[in-house]
Amino acid sequence: MIIKLKNGVKKEKIEELIKEIEDMGLKVSTAVGENTTILGLLGDTSKVSKDDMKSKEVVDDVIRIQEPYKKANRKFHPEDTIIRLNNGTQIGGGTFVYMAGPCSVESEEQIVSIAKKIKESGATILRGGAFKPRTSPYSFQGYGPKAIDYLVSAKKETGLALVSEIMEINQLKYFDDIDILQVGARNMQNFDLLKELGKTDKPILLKRGLSATYEELLMAAEYIMSNGNTKVILCERGIRTFETATRNTLDVTAVPFLHEKTHLPVIIDPSHAAGIARYVRDLSLSAVAVGADGLMIEVHENPAKAFSDGAQCIIPDEFDMLLKATKQIHELRKSL
Amino acid sequence: MIIKLKNGVKKEKIEELIKEIEDMGLKVSTAVGENTTILGLLGDTSKVSKDDMKSKEVVDDVIRIQEPYKKANRKFHPEDTIIRLNNGTQIGGGTFVYMAGPCSVESEEQIVSIAKKIKESGATILRGGAFKPRTSPYSFQGYGPKAIDYLVSAKKETGLALVSEIMEINQLKYFDDIDILQVGARNMQNFDLLKELGKTDKPILLKRGLSATYEELLMAAEYIMSNGNTKVILCERGIRTFETATRNTLDVTAVPFLHEKTHLPVIIDPSHAAGIARYVRDLSLSAVAVGADGLMIEVHENPAKAFSDGAQCIIPDEFDMLLKATKQIHELRKSL
Amino acid sequence: MIIKLKNGVKKEKIEELIKEIEDMGLKVSTAVGENTTILGLLGDTSKVSKDDMKSKEVVDDVIRIQEPYKKANRKFHPEDTIIRLNNGTQIGGGTFVYMAGPCSVESEEQIVSIAKKIKESGATILRGGAFKPRTSPYSFQGYGPKAIDYLVSAKKETGLALVSEIMEINQLKYFDDIDILQVGARNMQNFDLLKELGKTDKPILLKRGLSATYEELLMAAEYIMSNGNTKVILCERGIRTFETATRNTLDVTAVPFLHEKTHLPVIIDPSHAAGIARYVRDLSLSAVAVGADGLMIEVHENPAKAFSDGAQCIIPDEFDMLLKATKQIHELRKSL
Amino acid sequence: MIIKLKNGVKKEKIEELIKEIEDMGLKVSTAVGENTTILGLLGDTSKVSKDDMKSKEVVDDVIRIQEPYKKANRKFHPEDTIIRLNNGTQIGGGTFVYMAGPCSVESEEQIVSIAKKIKESGATILRGGAFKPRTSPYSFQGYGPKAIDYLVSAKKETGLALVSEIMEINQLKYFDDIDILQVGARNMQNFDLLKELGKTDKPILLKRGLSATYEELLMAAEYIMSNGNTKVILCERGIRTFETATRNTLDVTAVPFLHEKTHLPVIIDPSHAAGIARYVRDLSLSAVAVGADGLMIEVHENPAKAFSDGAQCIIPDEFDMLLKATKQIHELRKSL
Repeated sequence: MIIKLKNGVKKEKIEELIKEIEDMGLKVSTAVGENTTILGLLGDTSKVSKDDMKSKEVVDDVIRIQEPYKKANRKFHPEDTIIRLNNGTQIGGGTFVYMAGPCSVESEEQIVSIAKKIKESGATILRGGAFKPRTSPYSFQGYGPKAIDYLVSAKKETGLALVSEIMEINQLKYFDDIDILQVGARNMQNFDLLKELGKTDKPILLKRGLSATYEELLMAAEYIMSNGNTKVILCERGIRTFETATRNTLDVTAVPFLHEKTHLPVIIDPSHAAGIARYVRDLSLSAVAVGADGLMIEVHENPAKAFSDGAQCIIPDEFDMLLKATKQIHELRKSL
Repeated sequence: MIIKLKNGVKKEKIEELIKEIEDMGLKVSTAVGENTTILGLLGDTSKVSKDDMKSKEVVDDVIRIQEPYKKANRKFHPEDTIIRLNNGTQIGGGTFVYMAGPCSVESEEQIVSIAKKIKESGATILRGGAFKPRTSPYSFQGYGPKAIDYLVSAKKETGLALVSEIMEINQLKYFDDIDILQVGARNMQNFDLLKELGKTDKPILLKRGLSATYEELLMAAEYIMSNGNTKVILCERGIRTFETATRNTLDVTAVPFLHEKTHLPVIIDPSHAAGIARYVRDLSLSAVAVGADGLMIEVHENPAKAFSDGAQCIIPDEFDMLLKATKQIHELRKSL
Repeated sequence: MIIKLKNGVKKEKIEELIKEIEDMGLKVSTAVGENTTILGLLGDTSKVSKDDMKSKEVVDDVIRIQEPYKKANRKFHPEDTIIRLNNGTQIGGGTFVYMAGPCSVESEEQIVSIAKKIKESGATILRGGAFKPRTSPYSFQGYGPKAIDYLVSAKKETGLALVSEIMEINQLKYFDDIDILQVGARNMQNFDLLKELGKTDKPILLKRGLSATYEELLMAAEYIMSNGNTKVILCERGIRTFETATRNTLDVTAVPFLHEKTHLPVIIDPSHAAGIARYVRDLSLSAVAVGADGLMIEVHENPAKAFSDGAQCIIPDEFDMLLKATKQIHELRKSL
Repeated sequence: MIIKLKNGVKKEKIEELIKEIEDMGLKVSTAVGENTTILGLLGDTSKVSKDDMKSKEVVDDVIRIQEPYKKANRKFHPEDTIIRLNNGTQIGGGTFVYMAGPCSVESEEQIVSIAKKIKESGATILRGGAFKPRTSPYSFQGYGPKAIDYLVSAKKETGLALVSEIMEINQLKYFDDIDILQVGARNMQNFDLLKELGKTDKPILLKRGLSATYEELLMAAEYIMSNGNTKVILCERGIRTFETATRNTLDVTAVPFLHEKTHLPVIIDPSHAAGIARYVRDLSLSAVAVGADGLMIEVHENPAKAFSDGAQCIIPDEFDMLLKATKQIHELRKSL
């Protein structure tokens, strides 16, 4: 951490600050320029708050050099984290995983039928929303526990693993048979939820918030991991920018950046990114080419009748082609 | 709601769609141009999902004309909502309210002392964080229930009303003596929390999310209001933009815009907006001049020792001057 | 174009407005709802200004349905535009083109040497900056006409086509032997420059502005095209978002979106997007997979000594591997 | 400037880099931590390019501590710059200035008539567009030199000073009688234009680009100033954010921030910021309260018939009230 002092600060004040920092167990290196004095803090500064430092009377600016995350940091854990599910699916470490299914679980029939189709195409994880975060209170809010039951039926019939969103910690009791708990973009900094999920031993699919920086995403993962659960999968799903022709802007650079900084797997959700079904295929190709560890795709047998997000759903035949195409790119990429 | 159809769509398909829409109780007006056919949906479209419409096979684009919020809409409730607290404070309807206090409650002594000072200056509501949403799991997370007790002591000593943040619905039991429950920016779309708060009869201070549009903020208010609680206070606290020289960018236009669209009071938090104490005064002047219904200001007796957000705290003397200055602008504005 | 009228507007006023619109040669369809009256404008509305309509007394809001660009619009020109250079290079229409070279031309030796290397790898267009737009007036501003001479030498030696940036119309006289004139991101809405370039018959590489929407990019192309020059190549090079860990955010969705809306070729510049050399390869793979028509890559033999933008330059060996890898993805994509 | 080195870098490589930096006339202070080595560069680093440093092999990251602007920097020029026009108007240094007039000059009659009205209200500078930057090539592009003549007539009749936009350096010959040359937001980084304007002795009104950071705005001013012309007026006119309910988002924090960093005057254009006439008054109040040095307001006698931007124009009566109201706030602010 670098601390830039204000101009014309008294020597005693600087010494006071240095002492305070040394009392935290850090070493301080001082560099005095013509117009600026800077302090370099050496040691583990991950627990030093940048904002707190900034509030000191003699401090002009504070720049963090060291990443504030530790558990999620590849520097301290160089090997890829690999998450293994009961049905044999492996996430991270060079494999490529497919999660697919409807936005909302609409009926037992629907979810079982779609599960069979995506399985046939080669997906190993079924997605389906039971508790739905909707912008409007007047939109369909999900079937809740009943929808979880339907998902479990689909799992029994197909052997697919399950991923579904948890919005509130009191819902945890319904998720016993769900293999991966999803935290939605709007809940990425719902810290109480993150802490509680950190106490479970379920893999957590953590979606990047609409305007969350890479560092904030990693700090959200750190909330889960520092509470004991290291099985976190990161998901880039489009960020909010000035461009409104698509719902969000898919940020593919997140993949190489996160792979460099963290050992956690990173998947991409192109369905929410674009919000437009006809772009999902191209964005999926882009995602696998850039090095993602998997895809999460919304698939529905009749998008026009979907209870939610129909505009971004592709149909099973399209998913089948998408899977085959991305698989080939994945193979090619591995060989490069 | 306007629906733009794709080019070259078959007549039967259009008639099918029109029938489907009419079955929802809406009327449809059709306009056929050379290259484009558009349908105008007439009636209450607030419950029609834009995304769902977009997923129909023949639909190219959907534009919402009517606001999707009803309870929060000034069109259906032209008079200002006025919220009255037990200590006589009135929020909305032309008055100007001051909420002030430290970011975090740090001790009983601290909060009682600061409460006395801000009261002397003229504030009527004391703010103080008991449950703290922090980006890092390694930062101070707030003293929780104990901090609430300290706040209540300060209330007893001073008669100030209290506002404090609730992060999770299970914390509600601690908030009996808190007059206003605050929902933080990162929880603005924590829909389960909003729904539960909608079942209480406490005033809710709803902070705008870092990248929430005005409409999303109003839809979050609608979540609370449609569950029965109409006492919502909106708070602009800076949005996330490309500019990083300040923590966030204060969006003063939110005030006239929201006042036009909704009857709910709108206050401004300049402390979080800038993140820099020395800009708080100018931004406060700006906030009152633009027509806000109040200010929420972080005040601390020794910012350099604050447990959180010290960099944006002003000291009691500065608050005293700020209050006097903004009061004069408020009086002047009323007279214009 | 859809016009939403204000509530409670007098009938005569509406009729006045309708007459005014009909006088422009358009037809008007009226739909009257309970709370809202909307007018649908039918005909060629590309010359009707949305802002002008919005300023009418009785108008509440205006929504454009038709795209405001005509020459660039695929609707009126369904076939891909293909741009053919003198050295046989073809841009658009299914081929994949490589433009490579240093940010700045630094010497004749340098540019000839790098030209040979990228040619050997398979690139057909050499890039090199003669006039440099730099954020700081104290940074190297390019060697100007002399640099153009060096580029021409490299062209003579290698047969590569040339692309270089023009910043000001008075520089046009130096660009006789440059095959493609580049308009930089910061000049995308330098309308006088666009108009003048529209009067030349050189292919124009138009870079998307840092915060330009797709529509604004297409309108900038329209400025060139409506002045007579239809040889425009669009270039996505990263947009400005809240994320500052990389210099810009590469927006790959621009490719399928623009391909749908326009017949112009779309290439990607991953070097400027990330600003970090080690991400260039992954982003290039992503660009070809998403369907771009080509890449523009900064290549330098000794990035640490580059006069500008060294941090984003890759070395010739890396470019060689990148080209081979992306070529394979391109072949695979065509076969899907 | 702080340089963070990569981990595990060889000692000789570091010494090489240090030597290279010292050869630039700078001193280097080294701090060695457990995981990180950082170099502090002391001396005038304004001419050291951050990007160039970043491209060095052993460098991981570069952080600028010193501002890269010198002429515009208050540190080296503590007193406010005051710009004096021939008609006695003073900009900067505690006065408050009004620039008003139509978006486009439409006729001699129009501009003379509006000039008289704004003068009567108390404005001292007349604005009017002769060369118009329009998003669409099909929109009205301004009357050019003829419009300048009309402005000059208005000046002769009223004694008002004139401000008008120059889009291209070849237009300079028409601007002899224009008192202030305006550089539009889209041209803020048209560096060739800035350089040429730096060689004139006319005051330059430099508008902040739609997505320009404060630092980029100051660097654009530096382009003008380093070429000899120090009479620069900065103008905040709204930035582009995710919020699209208004055309742009007015960033009032720019005022205290820029006042701290630079000695140049800072005015606000609320008309372009909101794009909506009915918010102009509130935003103007906000602008004066936050400490701006003046306002630029679009005024038109019949906004519905305006050739451009009618939606954001207010009428003379509204301007008269706005001026009186803001003047009172300005007086009050000075007394605080």
